Amino acid sequence: MSSIQETKEGRDISLKYKEAVAPYGADMERVEKDIQKHFQSDVALIPQVSAYLAGSGGKRIRPILVTVASRLCGYTGASRHIALSVVAEFIHAATLLHDDVVDDADQRRGMESANVRFGNCASVLVGDFLFAKSFMLMSQDGDIRVINAMSEATKSLAEGEVLQLVNTLNLTITEEIYMDTIYRKTGALIEACCRVGAILGGADRDKEEALAKFGRNVGIAFQLVDDALDFVGDPQGWGKPIGADLEEGRVTLPLIRALAVADDTEASDIKAAMESGNGREAKLAAVIMTLKKYDTIAYAMEQARWRVEEAKAAVSACFEPSSHLDTMRAIADYVVDRKI
Amino acid sequence: MSSIQETKEGRDISLKYKEAVAPYGADMERVEKDIQKHFQSDVALIPQVSAYLAGSGGKRIRPILVTVASRLCGYTGASRHIALSVVAEFIHAATLLHDDVVDDADQRRGMESANVRFGNCASVLVGDFLFAKSFMLMSQDGDIRVINAMSEATKSLAEGEVLQLVNTLNLTITEEIYMDTIYRKTGALIEACCRVGAILGGADRDKEEALAKFGRNVGIAFQLVDDALDFVGDPQGWGKPIGADLEEGRVTLPLIRALAVADDTEASDIKAAMESGNGREAKLAAVIMTLKKYDTIAYAMEQARWRVEEAKAAVSACFEPSSHLDTMRAIADYVVDRKI
Repeated sequence: MSSIQETKEGRDISLKYKEAVAPYGADMERVEKDIQKHFQSDVALIPQVSAYLAGSGGKRIRPILVTVASRLCGYTGASRHIALSVVAEFIHAATLLHDDVVDDADQRRGMESANVRFGNCASVLVGDFLFAKSFMLMSQDGDIRVINAMSEATKSLAEGEVLQLVNTLNLTITEEIYMDTIYRKTGALIEACCRVGAILGGADRDKEEALAKFGRNVGIAFQLVDDALDFVGDPQGWGKPIGADLEEGRVTLPLIRALAVADDTEASDIKAAMESGNGREAKLAAVIMTLKKYDTIAYAMEQARWRVEEAKAAVSACFEPSSHLDTMRAIADYVVDRKI
Repeated sequence: MSSIQETKEGRDISLKYKEAVAPYGADMERVEKDIQKHFQSDVALIPQVSAYLAGSGGKRIRPILVTVASRLCGYTGASRHIALSVVAEFIHAATLLHDDVVDDADQRRGMESANVRFGNCASVLVGDFLFAKSFMLMSQDGDIRVINAMSEATKSLAEGEVLQLVNTLNLTITEEIYMDTIYRKTGALIEACCRVGAILGGADRDKEEALAKFGRNVGIAFQLVDDALDFVGDPQGWGKPIGADLEEGRVTLPLIRALAVADDTEASDIKAAMESGNGREAKLAAVIMTLKKYDTIAYAMEQARWRVEEAKAAVSACFEPSSHLDTMRAIADYVVDRKI
């Protein structure tokens, strides 16, 4: 594949994904109900912000992974996977709320500050509520190994966000730093979801590590695709406006690669555009030609695809064939091709 | 006591506090070292923000309470109380960092947004790191009851902060709502610290609940005093500038009481001053006369004093005399008289 476009293959993978997760539909409905239930608080603003969650159109990839991984490992219980799916989604939602604060400060610059303030405060505090609630749910579940996996992932998330913050507009970051950052901010939680599934199913060490490797690679691939789509847009209309990351000064793989292979004039044009006060579309227009010339979006997508193959190989080597295993592989494929 | 002033009694209580906590000095030094150690991260900004913690001049009331409560309950271990003291201080520090975001948005309104943005982002993310790290430390400690107590407290903290946010400039809030808010934002964590001490010492249910009641009341008293000092200042120079809460639109007990007993003219003058665009000192000047006329600062201080007596009575009824019990009582007294 050399570019991102709507393909028959993409549509097939999307259909295959829907079929693969259909058997877990009843579980996912319970997860949705419990998300709403645990959002309740006698502090009225907190459930109000649940609109953010409910209306965000998220695919609930993390709950799906907790659930399918647990079944793959032989878990037959009726409720723990629901509670721990809610935990995974709450930690993710808390991060989104806190990301908003970072983004709001930028996007709404120049707008009346009272709105910005109210939005920021509520986002920070309701995010904290969700973090706290997720650890309450885990303590009620009562498994220290789960808490350990999820608190490690939460720490990585915060570190990943800090890395992203300090490397804003840093055009000298390497692929290695970029990969480390996206592992922490996206890979670590998805890894933890798969590990929690393994713990629920009482998997042995090898199976747990295979699932962790699966999650790590799928998570990194997910972020690679997300970052690549910032330059070309999302045909299904899921995401942010094109160039949103670029406007925020996020230096992602297509750009890192372009800066590495471009000639001096091209590199300094990219640098000037990134550091200019120009808006989203002007910045995008200034960099996209060089990205296309060196096909660096495809370069990033190839990295994502390679990660997905790694992920699928890890679980295929460790588990007997089953419908759960097929679903895990379909999820991995979908991560790369979901928007194509 | 009818007003806040420097008294011999106040100095004696401060001295008595220092003497009472002196035997735990070596433990508190270990807590300081571990605070620094666990702040480490290969993400450089995170330890840099440790200056915020180390330089904040905090009295480490929460670590002291975890430690003394554990000893009171017969805990003789060498390390769990240190780790869980760090947990308590990290949760507290995370809240302070997130509070800063709420405050920054107000205090720095109109200043160049780049600085505000950088400050806000770092505060949110490093706060998240500390929350995550505290749950990692608890999962390493491995006691579900501790995690349950601390995650409940963390949830209350977030709810208390949201309540405070939504009741900004709400001059109709009742004493009951105010007390509930300060319980959640300050009482709940101090309650959890004392409960964790009881869990460490393997205390029976009665002793654990007595310590929880102690912590709850001491925490509420602590916040009552803090809020009262906003109107008269802090002779020892610990705190924020006089009127900082007032400027932020926080409606605290001296004001609530004044609005309840003042005549219509006085009440509408207070209302006009609070809702005006005037600064801190102008607001303070407009309300302080009415507060003094009805002695409502003393009213709030009496509530704090009553809470401290409740706290002391709860532990005195449940524990045999010991130096640890004396220290708990000295801590309670110090909370009200620390700044007088």
